[in-house]
Amino acid sequence: MISPPHPSMEVDFDSAEHQAKLAGLYRDFDAVGLTPLWRTREGLMPMSPEPKAVAYRWRWAQLHPLAARSAELVPVGRGGERRAIGLGNPGLTGDPYATPTLWAAIQYLAPRENAPEHRHTQSAFRFVLEGEGVWTVVDGDPVAMRRGDLLLTPGWHFHGHQNVSDEPMAWLDGLDIPLVAQLDQGFFEFGPDIVRNRSTPDRSRGERLWGGPGLTPVSLGGIARSSSPLLAYRWHHTDAALSAQLELENEGQPGVVEAGHAAVRFTNPTSGGDALSTIRTEMHRVRAGATTARQRTTASSVWQVFAGEGVMNVGEERYDLSHGDVVAVPSWAAVTIEASDDLDLFTFSDAPVMEKLSLLRTEVDA
Amino acid sequence: MISPPHPSMEVDFDSAEHQAKLAGLYRDFDAVGLTPLWRTREGLMPMSPEPKAVAYRWRWAQLHPLAARSAELVPVGRGGERRAIGLGNPGLTGDPYATPTLWAAIQYLAPRENAPEHRHTQSAFRFVLEGEGVWTVVDGDPVAMRRGDLLLTPGWHFHGHQNVSDEPMAWLDGLDIPLVAQLDQGFFEFGPDIVRNRSTPDRSRGERLWGGPGLTPVSLGGIARSSSPLLAYRWHHTDAALSAQLELENEGQPGVVEAGHAAVRFTNPTSGGDALSTIRTEMHRVRAGATTARQRTTASSVWQVFAGEGVMNVGEERYDLSHGDVVAVPSWAAVTIEASDDLDLFTFSDAPVMEKLSLLRTEVDA
Amino acid sequence: MISPPHPSMEVDFDSAEHQAKLAGLYRDFDAVGLTPLWRTREGLMPMSPEPKAVAYRWRWAQLHPLAARSAELVPVGRGGERRAIGLGNPGLTGDPYATPTLWAAIQYLAPRENAPEHRHTQSAFRFVLEGEGVWTVVDGDPVAMRRGDLLLTPGWHFHGHQNVSDEPMAWLDGLDIPLVAQLDQGFFEFGPDIVRNRSTPDRSRGERLWGGPGLTPVSLGGIARSSSPLLAYRWHHTDAALSAQLELENEGQPGVVEAGHAAVRFTNPTSGGDALSTIRTEMHRVRAGATTARQRTTASSVWQVFAGEGVMNVGEERYDLSHGDVVAVPSWAAVTIEASDDLDLFTFSDAPVMEKLSLLRTEVDA
Amino acid sequence: MISPPHPSMEVDFDSAEHQAKLAGLYRDFDAVGLTPLWRTREGLMPMSPEPKAVAYRWRWAQLHPLAARSAELVPVGRGGERRAIGLGNPGLTGDPYATPTLWAAIQYLAPRENAPEHRHTQSAFRFVLEGEGVWTVVDGDPVAMRRGDLLLTPGWHFHGHQNVSDEPMAWLDGLDIPLVAQLDQGFFEFGPDIVRNRSTPDRSRGERLWGGPGLTPVSLGGIARSSSPLLAYRWHHTDAALSAQLELENEGQPGVVEAGHAAVRFTNPTSGGDALSTIRTEMHRVRAGATTARQRTTASSVWQVFAGEGVMNVGEERYDLSHGDVVAVPSWAAVTIEASDDLDLFTFSDAPVMEKLSLLRTEVDA
Repeated sequence: MISPPHPSMEVDFDSAEHQAKLAGLYRDFDAVGLTPLWRTREGLMPMSPEPKAVAYRWRWAQLHPLAARSAELVPVGRGGERRAIGLGNPGLTGDPYATPTLWAAIQYLAPRENAPEHRHTQSAFRFVLEGEGVWTVVDGDPVAMRRGDLLLTPGWHFHGHQNVSDEPMAWLDGLDIPLVAQLDQGFFEFGPDIVRNRSTPDRSRGERLWGGPGLTPVSLGGIARSSSPLLAYRWHHTDAALSAQLELENEGQPGVVEAGHAAVRFTNPTSGGDALSTIRTEMHRVRAGATTARQRTTASSVWQVFAGEGVMNVGEERYDLSHGDVVAVPSWAAVTIEASDDLDLFTFSDAPVMEKLSLLRTEVDA
Repeated sequence: MISPPHPSMEVDFDSAEHQAKLAGLYRDFDAVGLTPLWRTREGLMPMSPEPKAVAYRWRWAQLHPLAARSAELVPVGRGGERRAIGLGNPGLTGDPYATPTLWAAIQYLAPRENAPEHRHTQSAFRFVLEGEGVWTVVDGDPVAMRRGDLLLTPGWHFHGHQNVSDEPMAWLDGLDIPLVAQLDQGFFEFGPDIVRNRSTPDRSRGERLWGGPGLTPVSLGGIARSSSPLLAYRWHHTDAALSAQLELENEGQPGVVEAGHAAVRFTNPTSGGDALSTIRTEMHRVRAGATTARQRTTASSVWQVFAGEGVMNVGEERYDLSHGDVVAVPSWAAVTIEASDDLDLFTFSDAPVMEKLSLLRTEVDA
Repeated sequence: MISPPHPSMEVDFDSAEHQAKLAGLYRDFDAVGLTPLWRTREGLMPMSPEPKAVAYRWRWAQLHPLAARSAELVPVGRGGERRAIGLGNPGLTGDPYATPTLWAAIQYLAPRENAPEHRHTQSAFRFVLEGEGVWTVVDGDPVAMRRGDLLLTPGWHFHGHQNVSDEPMAWLDGLDIPLVAQLDQGFFEFGPDIVRNRSTPDRSRGERLWGGPGLTPVSLGGIARSSSPLLAYRWHHTDAALSAQLELENEGQPGVVEAGHAAVRFTNPTSGGDALSTIRTEMHRVRAGATTARQRTTASSVWQVFAGEGVMNVGEERYDLSHGDVVAVPSWAAVTIEASDDLDLFTFSDAPVMEKLSLLRTEVDA
Repeated sequence: MISPPHPSMEVDFDSAEHQAKLAGLYRDFDAVGLTPLWRTREGLMPMSPEPKAVAYRWRWAQLHPLAARSAELVPVGRGGERRAIGLGNPGLTGDPYATPTLWAAIQYLAPRENAPEHRHTQSAFRFVLEGEGVWTVVDGDPVAMRRGDLLLTPGWHFHGHQNVSDEPMAWLDGLDIPLVAQLDQGFFEFGPDIVRNRSTPDRSRGERLWGGPGLTPVSLGGIARSSSPLLAYRWHHTDAALSAQLELENEGQPGVVEAGHAAVRFTNPTSGGDALSTIRTEMHRVRAGATTARQRTTASSVWQVFAGEGVMNVGEERYDLSHGDVVAVPSWAAVTIEASDDLDLFTFSDAPVMEKLSLLRTEVDA
């Protein structure tokens, strides 16, 4: 691996004497915790991303029963805090991480259960595949969780959940736990054991203040915040926006990402940027019969099938997709999506991190 | 005005000789267009803003009939372009300007009339006091105009209007004509004589793409634009947001500007900033019986009564307010609003200009 | 000018009856201060900028003696504040403004004179054509003024000047007085009659803190300020930067604006933007024999010859240039510069205003 | 750890039957890569940062001889690329990382040696403790490396080094290798084996263009770049800036961080932000006899003694400091510095990452 030495270095590199000296040097390095770059460069600085994380698919049909079983065996309460079950990427042995930066979990709340309040520097969201009856209470503001909704818990906001219905409810949790752990930025604080506000309004205070399109409360505006004060993105709005893009495509107007492929990003109305400072969240809709262009990006991501069926190709893997299935996509893996029928996919990624650090690269096949 | 001269200046300032020399100097100044600051400083650089513009109120009951009369006498067409009648501040003699930076006009379109397309670097909006049946077509996108709506025409967007109904319609136009004129930034271009898209959809393409709260089309997002791509802010959203703030006040929650005073700003979803790059637009609601705190700001503004009655105090002036009345507020004039019944006021100002130039000052009485 | 009326308008526009009605309408408009756009549109909204300001050149050989004469006749002191003589653009009758936004003046301080302290919201700078011996004291920080230096007085900083030498000194003052006047943003406050700090250090505190290239004091950094905390830009740095660009051109490396044309902008180290929030300041050097490409921009500007000779073409005007001559360039006037010998030109403009308001247009001939 | 179950859960948690069921559940979790948060929350989401990295000090007196020995045994060349020896934090077993985000290494170039060109997405800098005679060639621009200088290699810039002297030279390398590795953002590309430009100018092209304080080349300016185009920060400027702060302190003027403690940050003149997008770089000077206030921050950092002696307290550790010693400071470890004689410390950290992600917390004792 090492190219010819400098001419001035008149040494027989293959001699036993040299090898012995070298071994001695490396022993002395070890003794003080030194590592020569010339022996490790390829691993530390690959020619292109070589993620340990692999492409992977979890079947909702498998996740959900396991979560339901856990509800029979394990209570939700202070200490454990949440009945959330993390999806561990098989490539990331030892850590329950979906990708090197993202945590994805199925969370399950049995009828009438309550998850105690806490807060942490990690950013979080919930995406609701199905069901209703749970309110997540964010800094005292109860936010209804219903099918198709995206609910935010930006960093350092107190939050707990309560299920006021007689049905259990399960949803997808996304957090930047691995990123914050790796960066040693985690703070955590316990709040009340029972959510501080047990009311169950149809519309949260955040939505009442920030939910008008393009409308900013004068008393709260004028400053870009690092995360969205609008904590709930409702399915009926998301659905309508995706439908509109496809209708505009039918009318010959711009709007879709590419033929047959609509997508909306959930954004922060105070800045126009991503809803969370470290996590990008989007909903995609691919028309029955359409296939998306092959794309790869250095952001890692997680996808969940919200409705419809199809296939997702990730690198060399080909996953057929059913309701609720979750797919992890590592950095720089090429992705195409084929829709058998109209296919709705929720996705989240670490793209804002890479953008802010000027590291993001994306490549789309023409 | 001139304080004692430098000790080294041994001159008898009152002598005829000196006065003659001085007069000669000033003549020579004049000959080459020079003006000494020491004779003009007080006018050029006042101790605090001394606007030529004055506080003023125009009665809608007076404006509207005049506009209607003009519709009987003057056609709308190429050259004149618009049946818009500018409100000239009495202090700004010679110019039909509401304030030194803002143009306000009543525009009137008779049944079945069409205002031809053009575009200009000036930013514009329409605010609809009453009526419906007109579509403004912005870069080919027909936008319905209805009571309470705010409709944008950002700079250099082609736009024309058509009235498809059998009723005339009048509304308030706001532009930065005086600012752009003063800065010599005006460009203007004629478009088609008849609006290029005669369809009359309920919802514009801009709203279909950008009208979901916090939702950004992935294909169009990621870059802050200088003005809002959402060209219509609908009254039902504005009304709901104002109501919500007052309800939250009833619930003891934050949201209102001050007791009994709700307000929303119309903002650009790509940046969180003002909807137009040079004009701030807001809707205020003051509860029956409430009075706002005395406030003054170096931004100049124009207000229009949308609903309700009350009084607006501007500097030394006291204006009782009726439906549609328009009030001009010069820089640094103190304002309080007293609501007899629930009072809705639309307002626009040049505050974004002052903010961007780091010149804005605002003072609110505790 | 008015195109054919709407078909529904069955009126004989040329009839005496119609004309009488129209005259009556316009009288009624006048009575309430209304102006129809259709009679004024061309003046209010021209097809392209039609500045009242004209291209103009003032000869330093004329300005300087007049300033010197005024020093014999008029003291500097409280009230008049400065012996500054404003250059009035002949097109802007009545106002001593170089362009609609910019004030340019020759300021003159006799030996041992003192100009009292004051502050104002207007931004200001001094550019020193020749001489030395004056210190401008900005918020208590004495800043030496010497040949080729640019010295800043950002808005609302107290400042006064003292001449500690036995020679008079004259320099160019630039301010945004017309802009701030037009926008009604002016505040003014008197400070001490004699500058508060009479020391005459070689280097100001601002330079000691902010004058290292790319070095930011940790205690003061991390926040972008609206104007530069570095209040002095020294000629030896400016000269070296211009020379370096031309040397790099000789070496085949990028750096110059175009062949034979070097230019540096004076910038705010906390943001990388313009040194003042409303005024762009630059120094240009054109090699002997070179001619710059024809360029026009909607920013208005003022230029001063610092060294060398040449010709400046502004619109239809052709000005030969000598030491100290000052030229006003209105919005959208085309400019080319021809250098007889190496020609150094200082210039300031309102470009930051237009950029921040998204109004700036620039056109350069290939 | 788990608090009382929901009342509806009527289960004997201690029963063998329950324990068996639970064990079965966890086995089934394992089979599909699931991990329950309730068993791992404390590790994943600590109450405050619990870095694996520890405080550590490397002695220059130990590092330098090892680097010199390696120069006798290992050539520099293509493949290994650099004779850089990474300092591995004892807490981060297996990885040669100084902190979880930062790589620090001693790099050594023997007389007349050449390190081949390459580029990578990782950001890099060199800080020169002593010596001279090496030029680092960054995108074809040869940059002299001398005592006290900071030299940048922003991401994706080609760079190689050549030693043109008869003396070896050693310096500190800093990179964001661990961060980029963890985020899977690494790209790498080989360039020429011998630096493409073998000239050895005193001043690099970057300095000639960007090295004037507050001066921006008009042809290159107007856009904020993600990293500094000024690739060299020279010791004589840094030293002068630190001296000036302490002199200003003597004069009773602001400038120092705290009593007896001066500090400058190396910044990007196009934005005012950090010189590199992911790494903060600063030089600190503590007066003989002074002690800095106890401070902790969630950024991790590395420090090197440039001159002087003293003590650095990091958490529970107390390190006496000699010339060239390197200290690693993990997230949230409290730091105080005691200077025996005037003590100059270079430091770099990941603070820009935390700031951009809205995660940075800092606490300073009053």
